[in-house]
Amino acid sequence: MGKVILTGDRPTGKLHLGHYVGSLRRRVELQNSGEYDKIFIMIADTQALTDNADNPEKIRQNILEVALDYLSCGLDPAKSTLFIQSQVPELTELTMYYMNLVTVSRLQRNPTVKSEIQMRNFETSIPVGFFTYPISQASDITAFRATTVPAGEDQMPMVEQTREIVHKFNSVYGETLVTPQILLPENQACLRLPGTDGKAKMSKSLGNCIYLSDSAEDVRKKVMSMYTDPEHIRVQDPGKIEGNTVFTYLDAFCRPEYFAEFWPDYANLDEVKEHYQRGGLGDVKVKKFLNNVLQAELEPIRARRKEYEKDIPAVYEILKNGSAVAQAEAAQTLHDVRAAMKINYFEDAELIASQASKYGDK
Amino acid sequence: MGKVILTGDRPTGKLHLGHYVGSLRRRVELQNSGEYDKIFIMIADTQALTDNADNPEKIRQNILEVALDYLSCGLDPAKSTLFIQSQVPELTELTMYYMNLVTVSRLQRNPTVKSEIQMRNFETSIPVGFFTYPISQASDITAFRATTVPAGEDQMPMVEQTREIVHKFNSVYGETLVTPQILLPENQACLRLPGTDGKAKMSKSLGNCIYLSDSAEDVRKKVMSMYTDPEHIRVQDPGKIEGNTVFTYLDAFCRPEYFAEFWPDYANLDEVKEHYQRGGLGDVKVKKFLNNVLQAELEPIRARRKEYEKDIPAVYEILKNGSAVAQAEAAQTLHDVRAAMKINYFEDAELIASQASKYGDK
Repeated sequence: MGKVILTGDRPTGKLHLGHYVGSLRRRVELQNSGEYDKIFIMIADTQALTDNADNPEKIRQNILEVALDYLSCGLDPAKSTLFIQSQVPELTELTMYYMNLVTVSRLQRNPTVKSEIQMRNFETSIPVGFFTYPISQASDITAFRATTVPAGEDQMPMVEQTREIVHKFNSVYGETLVTPQILLPENQACLRLPGTDGKAKMSKSLGNCIYLSDSAEDVRKKVMSMYTDPEHIRVQDPGKIEGNTVFTYLDAFCRPEYFAEFWPDYANLDEVKEHYQRGGLGDVKVKKFLNNVLQAELEPIRARRKEYEKDIPAVYEILKNGSAVAQAEAAQTLHDVRAAMKINYFEDAELIASQASKYGDK
Repeated sequence: MGKVILTGDRPTGKLHLGHYVGSLRRRVELQNSGEYDKIFIMIADTQALTDNADNPEKIRQNILEVALDYLSCGLDPAKSTLFIQSQVPELTELTMYYMNLVTVSRLQRNPTVKSEIQMRNFETSIPVGFFTYPISQASDITAFRATTVPAGEDQMPMVEQTREIVHKFNSVYGETLVTPQILLPENQACLRLPGTDGKAKMSKSLGNCIYLSDSAEDVRKKVMSMYTDPEHIRVQDPGKIEGNTVFTYLDAFCRPEYFAEFWPDYANLDEVKEHYQRGGLGDVKVKKFLNNVLQAELEPIRARRKEYEKDIPAVYEILKNGSAVAQAEAAQTLHDVRAAMKINYFEDAELIASQASKYGDK
């Protein structure tokens, strides 16, 4: 059995650089590594609805945005199956069966759910769908027999929950489901990119995100107004690297070849940092370099996006075809699950024959 | 729009007299009243699995038992759609969407769930599927656009939960779902028939049930050993009616015509009670009468059962056909639900056109 990836995003907004370094860039690398037999990338609209039930229009509009972001980053429908969660109803049936294998108190202990509940100020009015979404995620992962879930550290409890469900299911109903592994990011700086204002959380409402779909000019403006070291006032002052957003972004994006191209005064990022810490290197110069780096990274993405934007119905066609492929895969797993649970009564000749003979003997 | 019934049972065991007077007899009357356009009777295996996840075999074996009980009581596949819950996967998808409209604390307040959790000694280890089954019930009821749910008083909070979900769904996504009404039993004695030992709860493990499938001899034995009034020792002693199981059963089953047939000494049940209370009427005589009454009620049920038992595959065929009819109905509702939520993206020409023009204008 080959290696299979399942991952995805909630379509609650356009994707930004945090998504890119945190997951998208890696996904494209994994896709192109040739190491995976199947790659499923899910636009998780059903999951997004769990805390946006009263605003389905937001989800509905952002599916296309996320799909465009995916395609422009280099996710290739010929190599990866891009699909929409709600178009694979088999996932909901799996969820229902898994819900019997998890206790309420186990869900309450899930640290990811706990912190997300806090983040959303749900308190006691948590929607049941939101509360139970770790189970729904287990169904997403197992439906595609995923071996590998590329995700951030914050998702570890979710994958752990899935592993528990797999273990429980297999021990109750017999070996059926595949146990997934989480694949964590390699680059520390990519774990959580801060907002341009230095705040840990990137959010649309804070206006501190650089989107993959931003124009070159928007990116430049956002970079030039980025949070750095508030005590680095004069050029000659020593500057701090820790908590300096510009350097965090450089850690995440800078490649060695960019120095020759954009800033031949330095051989590598360590030299820049050293100069900045010593004093004598102004923020504007570093920001200009970061802008060049980001533009170099984003330009091919923007170019691909422009191509895809020319034919929106074709993008929906990609999602439709991907959803059909995903559905066939999930239907196969569901078939195995129902057989293991022996709830495929009408196909169960043995059951019918044994009961017929029981009554025939009376 | 016509009147539609949805009701059913968890297939965790053979049905007994409690089910018969509490719901089955009424269902047959409603079926034959001609007042209902559609009647859906569900064998709720998915719901039964919520607290029997580790024993699917019990559910699997009892589906046939419940189906035989239904058919032998006079539920007629030509008039009522008999189906198996798990064979209508559309129900799970509806459940997922409804889960976003109910809060965890609302579920915790559900008195039926509270008392069932207590009854099953779940404490903190409640399976999530069990905890959320009121939402699953709402999907069962609404999937068939049921106007009428014949059920006992203990089910009132469940139907109320469904009404809340319908209200919430319709106000968020537009008028889509039908608001159901509970139809309570008319006969007080039918609300909850005690066990033959006088205990309020009938259960297989207590061995205090008379099953619809019991032989005539088994019924007779169980009646003759029934709990009466422990202080009614000698025939001439005055006896109590309250809490006297034999009289509770007579209240539930006795018809006026049975006196002429089996006990012409009395004109009606009030006369029997009056004599018993006064003293001078022995338990054995009353029990013999009850036995005659029950045999008269059960004989046609046994005869029909015998016929159906001759061809078990045909019974499965009835369930399979019923499940197909139920699925078509639920699929129609699900289609409407998805359209109301606007998550039918690929069919949504307006969405695709508006987004295409947005990007075209860039």
